[in-house]
Amino acid sequence: MINKLTEKIKKTNAPIVVGLDPMLDYVPEQIKKAAFEQYGETLEGAAEAIWQFNKAIVDATCELIPAVKPQIAMYEQFGVPGLGAFQKTVDYCHKKDLVVIGDVKRGDIGSTSSAYAVGHLGKVTVGSKSCAAFDEDFATVNPYLGTDGIKPFVDVCREEKKGLFILVKTSNPSSGEFQDRLIDGKPLYEYVGEKVAEWGADHMSDSYSYIGAVVGATYPEIGKVLRKVMPKSYILVPGYGAQGGKGADLVHYFNEDGLGAIVNSSRGIIAAYKQEKYARFGAEHFAEASRAAVEDMIADINGALQAVK
Amino acid sequence: MINKLTEKIKKTNAPIVVGLDPMLDYVPEQIKKAAFEQYGETLEGAAEAIWQFNKAIVDATCELIPAVKPQIAMYEQFGVPGLGAFQKTVDYCHKKDLVVIGDVKRGDIGSTSSAYAVGHLGKVTVGSKSCAAFDEDFATVNPYLGTDGIKPFVDVCREEKKGLFILVKTSNPSSGEFQDRLIDGKPLYEYVGEKVAEWGADHMSDSYSYIGAVVGATYPEIGKVLRKVMPKSYILVPGYGAQGGKGADLVHYFNEDGLGAIVNSSRGIIAAYKQEKYARFGAEHFAEASRAAVEDMIADINGALQAVK
Repeated sequence: MINKLTEKIKKTNAPIVVGLDPMLDYVPEQIKKAAFEQYGETLEGAAEAIWQFNKAIVDATCELIPAVKPQIAMYEQFGVPGLGAFQKTVDYCHKKDLVVIGDVKRGDIGSTSSAYAVGHLGKVTVGSKSCAAFDEDFATVNPYLGTDGIKPFVDVCREEKKGLFILVKTSNPSSGEFQDRLIDGKPLYEYVGEKVAEWGADHMSDSYSYIGAVVGATYPEIGKVLRKVMPKSYILVPGYGAQGGKGADLVHYFNEDGLGAIVNSSRGIIAAYKQEKYARFGAEHFAEASRAAVEDMIADINGALQAVK
Repeated sequence: MINKLTEKIKKTNAPIVVGLDPMLDYVPEQIKKAAFEQYGETLEGAAEAIWQFNKAIVDATCELIPAVKPQIAMYEQFGVPGLGAFQKTVDYCHKKDLVVIGDVKRGDIGSTSSAYAVGHLGKVTVGSKSCAAFDEDFATVNPYLGTDGIKPFVDVCREEKKGLFILVKTSNPSSGEFQDRLIDGKPLYEYVGEKVAEWGADHMSDSYSYIGAVVGATYPEIGKVLRKVMPKSYILVPGYGAQGGKGADLVHYFNEDGLGAIVNSSRGIIAAYKQEKYARFGAEHFAEASRAAVEDMIADINGALQAVK
């Protein structure tokens, strides 16, 4: 799957991923109205609204991008119906040949981590059958529990040829509280990065490992360091756009081959029509506004990468 | 809700929680057969089997215990139907007046953490309505992302009078890889423990805080230290029984008032009928085997607590 991701990035010339994190506030009134008329102001109504919203954005942007990253929390808040919308979104993106990164940030131990791995990336045994459940291509994973928490995911990835992005340095202001703590003069995130490199070394595809990392766009100096610590790992970069990261900040997250990083934008793309810059599209043409925002993001990042060549 | 937990622990004289982590392998053949006949060997069939299994165990043990802890991974592996079984289990346990600790180990930042908090502990706004989704009483949370990840959960807990158990020191063999790293001579778990105490100080109930911690039974010396670091926090203790922890190891997880800890057992209770000790019940009477295992666990822990008085 990391080969597929690389091929798709090369083909689209777009090292980006669209974060499908549909807050109900982002969904235009006409979509909510139709959904609530059908299902009421219920969890089912909310689930229908975010699904229709996603579908329009995927239709408008899928030719331009290699991958999407649905954030499961935004679906899970609507309970079982919300998770139904997550499942529909994953399945629809697969139909459109997009790589799907499930931003699930799961992490547990032993058989529990195995259950998450199987549910999101593999197949679960039911009697004499093997059944796929959510079936994303990549999942994000939290490393706080150590190797016991990661290994069950790696095992499933090896079998299914899927991949992981492990949280190393997150984009939020307080990420340093624990992640930046110095241990013998070296910050915790660097230890975690070394582990990612170690876990990934046994799990290589052609030129990159199936085991990648999450490093926030908001800490470019740390990104530069971690790029060297994990040379064979893809870096998934949140924090671009709405959180403050710019293309020029991100050049050091990439390797010299121009690959090795994929930059996420969520709100900046899916709620583009709410920005002054794209207001001309109006709420009715929200998906076209998202398409324009994708084009601008690609130009920004590629421009920055060209400038350092 | 922490008051309710305390009251129920006193009333049952049982500082324990039954982990509802239903692997399909634990479910007796007669239940699987009935479920597969109705739904086939599908995700729906698996979901029905684990729900019927849970229901029987809850019926057999609910008078003896204050709380249950369903591990969501074991449901999530069966996709949307599995999460339907999780929801049914939570609702049924509430009907039986049990405190429900959702073992979800979620953790993200900002609006994403808010979404998890709302989905598991609060109410989500849909149009003019407020809807509850999973609606557990407590949730477990991963601290790796720092205060930004925790605060949205704390805010929802304050509003809803619900609570958290934050991962501090987990029970697994490799938990020390990051959690035990020394920072200025002090292990990371102790820093996290201090943060739990700090987060919890603003969020007190009568005698305990709504913000608790997870500390594994497999590290009793660390439990003793962390008890003092977080005197007002309940400690949720996994790792008893199948993972090796014994009642005598756990006395220092409790405060002098005999409260402040709640010990979880999952496999040791729900799959008790598979142990030699309870084999006399047979697969047919698996729920009675679980009840006997609960009685033995309560006696073991209370015996150990009496011995140090």
